[in-house]
Formats: sequence, structure tokens, C-alpha cells
Amino acid sequence: MRQSQRGQVDPFIVMDVMEAARRAEASGRHIVHMEVGQPATPAPAGARRALAAALEEPLGYTVALGLPALREGIAGLYRRWYGIDLDPARVIVTPGSSGAFILAFSALFDAGDRVALGEPGYPSYRQILRAMSLQPVGIQTRIEDRYQPRPEDLPTDVQGLILASPGNPSGTVLRRGELAALAARAGELGMALISDEIYHGLDYGAGFHSALEVTDKVFVINSFSKYFSMTGWRVGWMVVPESHIRTVERIAQNMFICPPHASQVAALAALDCEDEARANLAVYAENRRLMLARLPAMGFDRIAPPEGAFYIYADVSSLTDDSLKFAGEILETAGVAVTPGLDFDPRRGAGTLRFSYAGATSEISLGLDRLAAFMAAR
Amino acid sequence: MRQSQRGQVDPFIVMDVMEAARRAEASGRHIVHMEVGQPATPAPAGARRALAAALEEPLGYTVALGLPALREGIAGLYRRWYGIDLDPARVIVTPGSSGAFILAFSALFDAGDRVALGEPGYPSYRQILRAMSLQPVGIQTRIEDRYQPRPEDLPTDVQGLILASPGNPSGTVLRRGELAALAARAGELGMALISDEIYHGLDYGAGFHSALEVTDKVFVINSFSKYFSMTGWRVGWMVVPESHIRTVERIAQNMFICPPHASQVAALAALDCEDEARANLAVYAENRRLMLARLPAMGFDRIAPPEGAFYIYADVSSLTDDSLKFAGEILETAGVAVTPGLDFDPRRGAGTLRFSYAGATSEISLGLDRLAAFMAAR
Repeated sequence: MRQSQRGQVDPFIVMDVMEAARRAEASGRHIVHMEVGQPATPAPAGARRALAAALEEPLGYTVALGLPALREGIAGLYRRWYGIDLDPARVIVTPGSSGAFILAFSALFDAGDRVALGEPGYPSYRQILRAMSLQPVGIQTRIEDRYQPRPEDLPTDVQGLILASPGNPSGTVLRRGELAALAARAGELGMALISDEIYHGLDYGAGFHSALEVTDKVFVINSFSKYFSMTGWRVGWMVVPESHIRTVERIAQNMFICPPHASQVAALAALDCEDEARANLAVYAENRRLMLARLPAMGFDRIAPPEGAFYIYADVSSLTDDSLKFAGEILETAGVAVTPGLDFDPRRGAGTLRFSYAGATSEISLGLDRLAAFMAAR
Repeated sequence: MRQSQRGQVDPFIVMDVMEAARRAEASGRHIVHMEVGQPATPAPAGARRALAAALEEPLGYTVALGLPALREGIAGLYRRWYGIDLDPARVIVTPGSSGAFILAFSALFDAGDRVALGEPGYPSYRQILRAMSLQPVGIQTRIEDRYQPRPEDLPTDVQGLILASPGNPSGTVLRRGELAALAARAGELGMALISDEIYHGLDYGAGFHSALEVTDKVFVINSFSKYFSMTGWRVGWMVVPESHIRTVERIAQNMFICPPHASQVAALAALDCEDEARANLAVYAENRRLMLARLPAMGFDRIAPPEGAFYIYADVSSLTDDSLKFAGEILETAGVAVTPGLDFDPRRGAGTLRFSYAGATSEISLGLDRLAAFMAAR
């Protein structure tokens, strides 16, 4: 039976690490998980209570763009977080940020179009683009630029640009002026701008700025997955220019019908649970403090400033030229799962590792002890 | 800001009817809904109980292909329903059947490929294909063929074929021999076969056959939405040939990460709630009996044999050449919302209507009274 060209997307290399970790656990070993990009905490208690109370309702299809109250609630978040007065009609509830990318790429780009993105970056950008017959164009960023692109780095022959702040795997944040300069340059070049802001809320003093603060000509993508600790619920959102609402609505009606209704009910209640989200943030902040206090001393000293999200991205090219093998050794010897950089940066990832600190502090602390012993024994 | 060509998909015409119905209800009028394609019943009680009990768990990402227990449970359904011994590894849990179509089209077709489908048919086939830079090729079916294509109708210059049995809007079922002949012809022509079986379980004596009974070279798509009454939960599945599992897994990892976890928990429990599903079916059966007893006498006498699903598709071309206007009159005068055929059949839909009988019997009965009065007064 036929197979498409575009369906031949790259495998996730991290899956090999996760599978090895699963096998180790199945054999009775304890593994510290610094490879996973999701909180260990459940959805906020208020969100779960709201859903439990709604389970007698039919929870059939919602309208394609999401529950009106949820769209209004998300618009309210933009007032609280950024001081932006956002028309809820521009807010589109999506099946996770993944669904938002599918909608954005469908609405903005035709087959063969080229879309630029920073390397290192979230691997699925590239793979979703390919599966939709679009061409990812990597921009090699520099550690001295906090792994974020400069305006002069933007290619002149592409139709779109994806920015991510805080970045994954880097955790670095674009300043307001940097966002403005990148948005202005993208506009000059006629590129559609997509701003991935899924880690907003998870910052440690650097603050965070939405691309909406500097332009309305942007698709802003966010989610309940990270700050609100709702990864498996598959509910995110996208803010689009008024000119694109109808287009996105028609695509969403056909491609998704609607985001999961139960998840929308939970997400609506989650918006009133920022206390719980902030408590989770305090845990990440302590984890990050531990990581920064100990990783450099054990040899992981070339790291991007970890300003947001829950990741530390380390240049380990002085330690190895095969990060997959190195991660395998760390797992095998120390019982700590970490992510080799290859998924994030096809060109330089053989010399980088990502450490996630989204887990419980006790686990992070134990993992650091194990990493220190591993590095001391090398 | 740029817009893509492929993003310019057609609007749903039924949305205009639904919006008019909503306005009428907002003004205090009672409207009988024969336009909606979803059960009025909630998810099975056992499914809701299972989710309520799981709400203390993290419900983070699952593996991309879905909970292993759910994949096994679905494979069990193929044993019960069709006597097929299906390897659970071939079962892929998806974010609704919508997500399954996106995965199937990504795995099978490249930009510009042509995919054949029967007209009348589910409108989103065409629109999802377009949004993915693929070309829908309509096959005009005949009422004497129960609005299903014949093998000799298949175009010879297409890369794929979508079959739907029971069909939407027709409700008609392909016999086993018909499925076999169509699959064989598609194979001869090198077409990838996709079989939409979302209404399986909802039949009234005609029985139903999976394309898997006649070939393994097929993508079979189904969902918990209809038979298990879980539309808004966005959880469906797809059975693929063994040769395509890895390809689909990689695409799913990137495009969706995973189907909604809470919905998977509910769906797993729903598999043990077939009693409740059968009770819903008994309601549809009574609704169908009422429809067939009364619609022909009032003038809706050219209908496809309504063998499955919960739709009756009527040729009303002797009554109108503008089904949208006709549906508007029925709504305005009789207070009954029905669907004009234009979304299902761009060429002949101006002369057809779809009546859904997924609602409560009391509502269907009231709607039939109103329709009878409307038709008598014409």
C-alpha cells in the first residue's frame, strides 16, 4: 500500500532514551526523569472539580472555536499578564498547541512554502511542517544570543517565521525590544509571524512578553499544558489577527470539529487556579536553583541562561561528540534520563543535552547527586 | 498578513441553519433539532464514572498511539463485531475520527494527489483534503445504488478512495460483496483505500461489514462519537496495515502528541457499556420507525433506504430547487431545523434534505407533527 513522501518525518531520538528508561524501570531500577517535558503535577484541583461536576452533562460538540466563556477567560489572561485589551473573538481554543500549529500552517502557507525557525528548537515544528508539505528552514542561533535569532539572521526567501520565547530546549526569553525588532524585520520581508508562547507564566525573574505587545500581525500560540499543568488534556489556544478568524474557523470546523469538551470545561476552571499554578512555579524555581548551584561544578558549565520554562540546555561538546551515546551512559550508569540535543538541533545537537526540572524537588535533588557521582567517576 | 490558498475551504452551509435556529430559540421559540449529527445522550455512565475515579491521577501525555489497554479493547471489538482477530498494534487511538483523517491523509498522500469520494458524502472529507493541498474528486452516486459508488465508477487517475458505510447523509450500507468489489478495484488501480466506519453499531437489521473483512490493505476509521455517544470527547481510532504503523506513529507524535488522556480513560470504560449503547440504539430505531411511517405520506417519499446511522436523506427536487431556502421556510414556519443537502453534494444538494433522528423520541414525534402540518399547508 502506498506511502507518502511527506509522511516520512524523522523519529524522535528522545523516544529511544525513554524506551531505555522504561525497560530499566521494568527491570526494577529507579530512574530519575530529567528527560520529560511535562509537569509531574495533575491539572489544578479546581479544574478537576469543575469537570467532575459537569460529567452529568452531555458534553457533546462545542462550537469549533471553543466555549465562548473560555475564549473570554483567555482574553482576560492577556489583560492580567500583559495589560493587553484583547477581543475574545480573536481567541481560538485548539486541541493543544499542536492543533494550533496545524491550523496556523493551514491558514498561512501553501505546499512548498518555506518557514524559518531557530535551531535549537522544538522538534515538532519541523516535522509538522514536513507532514504538511512545507519546508522548514533552520536558523543556527548562538549561545551568546541566548539561542534566539537576530533580525539580520532571518532568511529573505521564506514565507513564515516561528519564534519561541521562552524557548525549548533553551529556556531563554526574548526581550520586548528583541521581539519588536524580529517582528518588524519579518514584516518587512513579508513573512507571516508565529509566536510560540507555551511556556509563558514559567519565568524566574526575567519576565515574559507576548508578541501581541509589539504587533497584531501575528499568530500567538499558547496552551494549558505547561503553566496550568494540563499536558494530557490537549487544550491550547491561538490568538489570530481579525482578518484570519473566519478562515481559521472554517479550517477548525472541518479538521477538528472542536477541541475536547471535557478539557475545555476543566481549562475554564483552571483560569481561576493561578494560585496552584504559582505553587507549582515555586517548585520549579527551587529545582532550577538546585540545578544552577550544582550542574556547573560537575562540568555542565556551558549553559544558556535558563530564564523560563523548566529546561537547562548544556553544551557538552567538550565532553562528547555523541550526545545520544552520552545520554545512554548517564542512564545506564547513573540512572538519570536526560535528552540528547539531536532532536532540537540536527546540526549541533550531538554536542548538547537538555535537562528538564519539571519533576518533584526530591527527585531533582537525587538526580543531581547521581549526576555528580557519574561525572566525578569519569 | 498573508493567507494561504488551501486555507480557503468552503463554509458549512448547515451553520447558517444552526445559527438561525439558535436565534429563534434565543427569542423564546421552541425548535426541534433534526439538523444535528450527534446523540442527545451523554457518554455512557460507566465511562463517566471511570473518568471521575481517575481525576486524581496526573493524566499527562499518553504514548502517541494511545493507551495500550484501549488499543487492546478496540481490537476486542473487532472480534465481537466482525469475528476478526486483529493485532492491537495495528489499532491507533486518534483525536476523533477527524484526527484519524489527518493522519491517514498525511501518511498516504503528497501535495497535489487526488482522492475520490462518493457524493453525497461527509463534507469535511473534501475540506480536510483541500486544507492539506490534496484534490477531492467527487463520484456522483445514484439513488438506485443507495448513494454508494460502483466499482466501475472509480476514476482511474486518483491516488486514493474514501468509502463510508453507513454513509452520511444517506445512512446506506455497503454489502460485504460490494465492499470486496470496491476494494479489489481500488487495489487494481493502485488507490489507497480509506473506509469510514464511524456509524458502525448503528444499524437496523441490514448488518454492517468492516472493510477489514475483505482486505488488510485499508485504513479503517472509526470513533467513540456515535455508537458510544461521545462526540465532544474527541476520541476515535484507526486500523492501519502493519506496514504503516511506524509512519503513522511518527506523524501522530509530532502532529498530536497524543489523544486527550481523560477521553481515553472514558473510552476504555465505554467499551464495557455496550448495554447502554444498545439502549440508545433502541431509541434511534423507534425514531426511525416513526420517520419512515410518516415522512413519505407527507411528501418526503424519495428517500435512500435508511439502513444505518441516524439520518434520512430525501430527494426533494420535486418540491424545491433551493434546499437552503426550503430548510429556512421549514425552520421559520414549522420550527423544525433540517439540513439542506448542499454541504453533502455540491452538484445535487440544492434538491435534497437530511433529517437526523438522533434526538429524543418525544422531540422527533413533535417534529413530525410540525412537518406534517407544514407540508399540508403548502
